Amino acid sequence: MAELKWYEKAGQNSDVAVSTRVRLARNLRRAVFPARANLSQKEAVVKEVRAALMNSNSVLSREFRFLPLGELSPQAAASLAERHIVSPEFIADRQGKAVLVSEDESVSIMINEEDHLRIQVLREGLALKEAAETADRIDTLLGETLDFAYDKDFGYLTQCPTNLGTGMRASLMLHLPGLSGSGSMARVASNLSKLGLTLRGAFGEGSKAVGEMYQLSNQITLGLSENQAIENLSAIAGQLMGEEKRFREAMCQEAGWQDRISRAAGVLKSARLMSGSEAAEQLSLVRLGLAEGMLEGLEIGEVNGLMVQSQPATLMAREGRGMEEKERDRRRAELLRGACRELRDAEA
Amino acid sequence: MAELKWYEKAGQNSDVAVSTRVRLARNLRRAVFPARANLSQKEAVVKEVRAALMNSNSVLSREFRFLPLGELSPQAAASLAERHIVSPEFIADRQGKAVLVSEDESVSIMINEEDHLRIQVLREGLALKEAAETADRIDTLLGETLDFAYDKDFGYLTQCPTNLGTGMRASLMLHLPGLSGSGSMARVASNLSKLGLTLRGAFGEGSKAVGEMYQLSNQITLGLSENQAIENLSAIAGQLMGEEKRFREAMCQEAGWQDRISRAAGVLKSARLMSGSEAAEQLSLVRLGLAEGMLEGLEIGEVNGLMVQSQPATLMAREGRGMEEKERDRRRAELLRGACRELRDAEA
Repeated sequence: MAELKWYEKAGQNSDVAVSTRVRLARNLRRAVFPARANLSQKEAVVKEVRAALMNSNSVLSREFRFLPLGELSPQAAASLAERHIVSPEFIADRQGKAVLVSEDESVSIMINEEDHLRIQVLREGLALKEAAETADRIDTLLGETLDFAYDKDFGYLTQCPTNLGTGMRASLMLHLPGLSGSGSMARVASNLSKLGLTLRGAFGEGSKAVGEMYQLSNQITLGLSENQAIENLSAIAGQLMGEEKRFREAMCQEAGWQDRISRAAGVLKSARLMSGSEAAEQLSLVRLGLAEGMLEGLEIGEVNGLMVQSQPATLMAREGRGMEEKERDRRRAELLRGACRELRDAEA
Repeated sequence: MAELKWYEKAGQNSDVAVSTRVRLARNLRRAVFPARANLSQKEAVVKEVRAALMNSNSVLSREFRFLPLGELSPQAAASLAERHIVSPEFIADRQGKAVLVSEDESVSIMINEEDHLRIQVLREGLALKEAAETADRIDTLLGETLDFAYDKDFGYLTQCPTNLGTGMRASLMLHLPGLSGSGSMARVASNLSKLGLTLRGAFGEGSKAVGEMYQLSNQITLGLSENQAIENLSAIAGQLMGEEKRFREAMCQEAGWQDRISRAAGVLKSARLMSGSEAAEQLSLVRLGLAEGMLEGLEIGEVNGLMVQSQPATLMAREGRGMEEKERDRRRAELLRGACRELRDAEA
């Protein structure tokens, strides 16, 4: 059996915290920003960054695969975005871009995204400090070879001024069916923005987050150290998760929610066709049921994995071929039926 | 374990034919029609009919219970209608009415419905001849004592002229998801009406029949013998059932229907709250799945029984107490979960 990907595991506080992401924006002092660079200038940056990592003596470098985006099929590129290895924007135009990705897919370095480098570390559950430390280690390693654009007043220079300073954005993917189900999201998001944090749906457009998944991120990168930003985010996330848990407790006493959760398990076990958005909603209910002890027979890490695997491009990448929507819906239902076989109501 | 009620069994052609009903309208020559009778006149009719059955020497009479409607709770009366023992109209005003009902609930005699007597015989599946024979036997038995209003030209006299003649209405309850799902009902119903038959939703109002259950009945009672009417209905029902089966075969090849059927089983096994109309729809899909060999682990007769038992008044009668809608939805889901425990996709 292959090693589990980071997103197939459950971590600290996994009942609410799905994953942690820390990313650092870095640029090379003597290269123009990707938005203004031509193809050969971009390719030179790719080459330089790749060499800095691959030629380093660190044991870390041996774990990385180099993926030149231009050589990937659209489907393989889309699957990278579904697995959170790259940003959705990164794959829109694939020329002159590349990504370095660690074996368990938890560390990636996007080359020629908005900035020359976007060092990204992902971890299951709540793991801000660990993720920040890993990102820092890679930053240090690359900094031994690469000459990063840095100003003593402004810190790391980035294309977009909102990233100036630390260049760090730390995010938590949070599963918030309690706050969302009780209609509290608008109030919570507004309070958080006063604290310099943003909360928004992790997937999909508009006000309703697909599968009740939200991204909580720091906004401020200037005038505050990486550690301060991480500690600030960590403290507020703790409060938010506590509030989520209280709403869940009340919800789980309600017959209507017990019914929805139990049905979600029944539908995942029986459906023969399922769209991606329905899968996200049903898995969200099952995740809630498992976290609150109402369901058993499946691990939360497995649910996290299914949420990723049931997305269209990753589903096709798994099969190694393109599929029409109808066939994807069939294959997705089959995957979920198999995985949820043992899922059942917890013994009273 | 109590003897099964007729509606808990499956009979001939049970894949499509749920049940057969034959009813005879009879009136006493020397009494005014129920609509014009006062309470004491009605009570005299009740007494006379009861005595005619109970005092007869036939073994049949020993199986009957006498239920004076005025002494029943509204809930017990409603459950009689849900079990098809009496017509829904019969229980609207309960004074001066009674019903004689056989132990397995397959034979009932409503006293002071629209006519003085409505002799009704119910059978599982397609059993027109058997039902007509039983009705004839009871008619003969009662006719030995009672003086039925009969005219040599018009036959049996009834309050409504549409029943004049044989006074017989034969009906089949048919499960028609194939014809209904393919949008053929309007065409079929229009063709049948030209043949002197009516086809309409067995439950509910409007064009959509709840649970895809339809009632096919003869319309003509004058100028045609009971046997001719039965044979006519029987022949046309045979064609209709054949057409239904052809539509089902095509449907069951479709991924969308396979999905709906398999999900229905999953939902019935997992839901913790279920409305009566949802139960009818899910049971209809499961009935189709069992009949076409796509599901297993439950008998069609059991599905027939669940369709009756999951109706509100019968659900309350079973518990022996009144229940609010929310509690009924909970109890109904519990009943269905338990009964559908073994329901599963058929082995490929």
